[in-house]
Amino acid sequence: MDVLKKTITVFAPATVANVSCAFDIMGFALSKPGDIVKLTLRKGDGGVSINSITGDSGRLPKEADKNTAGFAVKEYLRRQGFKDYTISMDIQKGMPLGSGLGSSAASAAAALYGINRLFDDAMDERELLKIGLACERLACGSPHGDNIIPSILGGLVLIRSYVPLDYTRLPVPEGLYCLLIHPNVEVNTRDARRILPETVELSRAVRQWGNIASLVAALYNGDYGLLSRSLEDLIIEPERSKRIPHFDEMRDIAMKNGALNLSISGSGPSVFSFFESVQPAESAALAIQRVFKEYGIESDVYVSKINKTGPEIIR
Amino acid sequence: MDVLKKTITVFAPATVANVSCAFDIMGFALSKPGDIVKLTLRKGDGGVSINSITGDSGRLPKEADKNTAGFAVKEYLRRQGFKDYTISMDIQKGMPLGSGLGSSAASAAAALYGINRLFDDAMDERELLKIGLACERLACGSPHGDNIIPSILGGLVLIRSYVPLDYTRLPVPEGLYCLLIHPNVEVNTRDARRILPETVELSRAVRQWGNIASLVAALYNGDYGLLSRSLEDLIIEPERSKRIPHFDEMRDIAMKNGALNLSISGSGPSVFSFFESVQPAESAALAIQRVFKEYGIESDVYVSKINKTGPEIIR
Repeated sequence: MDVLKKTITVFAPATVANVSCAFDIMGFALSKPGDIVKLTLRKGDGGVSINSITGDSGRLPKEADKNTAGFAVKEYLRRQGFKDYTISMDIQKGMPLGSGLGSSAASAAAALYGINRLFDDAMDERELLKIGLACERLACGSPHGDNIIPSILGGLVLIRSYVPLDYTRLPVPEGLYCLLIHPNVEVNTRDARRILPETVELSRAVRQWGNIASLVAALYNGDYGLLSRSLEDLIIEPERSKRIPHFDEMRDIAMKNGALNLSISGSGPSVFSFFESVQPAESAALAIQRVFKEYGIESDVYVSKINKTGPEIIR
Repeated sequence: MDVLKKTITVFAPATVANVSCAFDIMGFALSKPGDIVKLTLRKGDGGVSINSITGDSGRLPKEADKNTAGFAVKEYLRRQGFKDYTISMDIQKGMPLGSGLGSSAASAAAALYGINRLFDDAMDERELLKIGLACERLACGSPHGDNIIPSILGGLVLIRSYVPLDYTRLPVPEGLYCLLIHPNVEVNTRDARRILPETVELSRAVRQWGNIASLVAALYNGDYGLLSRSLEDLIIEPERSKRIPHFDEMRDIAMKNGALNLSISGSGPSVFSFFESVQPAESAALAIQRVFKEYGIESDVYVSKINKTGPEIIR
């Protein structure tokens, strides 16, 4: 019998990064979908192992060093100097990989939140986020935080800089709903970065930052009209949307159903729309899913509020 | 004796445009300096004339069509279809021309505010602003609104787009003071536009829009630390600051005195700093003025709160 054995099971949310004009600086958490990670802590020799992964069709590595959730826990123990424990993990992927929903971030966020709870919140928020950023570097090759930070914190987060880490939680209008659509086609994040322009015309950059500044003002003011007008990406979306099937048609359907926008989630192929209430979001979801079906493409749709609280202990 | 004769005298404030990272999309009004325009309305044949201009060293045109204040009044009468009046004007320039303080905008703002008051606010805000933009096109060759809009409205204004005109008044933290320094050297706005880069690296643009978004969040939250960190312009200032004498030295002095920033006002040569209270702003003002004096450069300094109310009727 173990001297010490503690378990915790944590859900962490999917996230939308690259929020339209706010490319690379903003992300938000959804209420669903998300990943579930179970951690079992025992006295031991510092080892971290992954027992099981489900929902990934066997594609994710079980070596702790190569898996974002495993890496997160190893880094946590290392940075805290906790050497006398072993952790075993069970990971349930609740969303498709490479879908633009922050899949790698959600597993890492669940693992980090869970391990920190097992040690009575021994690590503060900023340090947790720094490990989260290291996990994203492992998964995507660059330490982007617009998935991992909102997945850990919940809410809608603006990231001004990484060194030093400088982020701000922005207000979310109470009635805001998000429709997320994932067509079952895959886009690799590394590839998606390659098609970005290296330079931007100054005049276009100025229009983009007018949109970004107005997006932030709209969130503080709860101004849906301004929110809608500001959610316009002149720089990244024109390139990336070409690789997303039926993007313009989806947008037309969403806007006709009262959406404030339709924009790429992360680097796609998922897209998201904001709505002022739930009913039109659900109508748009059905209409878009129907059209995809006609084209022979399966899709997942999720209608949810913004998740303002982040990870959640399930057991 | 005239059947109808009404006069009004209006002060309109100097403004700071190109607020650091928020190039071309943000401007704010100062409490001082500013321009004063006296309007005299009589029954007549639609003529607009300028009686006198003082404080411009004889450099401004007295032909109404070529003067922003005269043009503003002519456009106002034309767009309203008011044909049975004549207006004569007296203009007192309260700030140096070509100083980066929105000199042309202040005269136009005073004239527009005054003529609209004489006609009992017959024109709404948006239409007034549109005439103001036409005045800026006359003065600067492009219809930039980051001086004229805050000069007419007061406060700190974010401009998302011109067609259609889309602007938002942002909150200003209560205790915020602005130090404005005008070294007596002249920079032409048309020239200043020429040295701008045509393109911007995407990575740099992303950092800039992180700053811009955070600047807006800092204003809403009254977060001086974030305000200071966000007031960093990576794109325009590195070029334009080269033409402003002793720019880096001014910044060092300001920051040592507790400034949140030191940035170019408009296209210079004036610069501005925000402070959390009045005393350090005045200390910085004296210290910078002393250094300029050692270099043989005269300078004007103004310490004021943000002007939240815009033009003011003096008589």
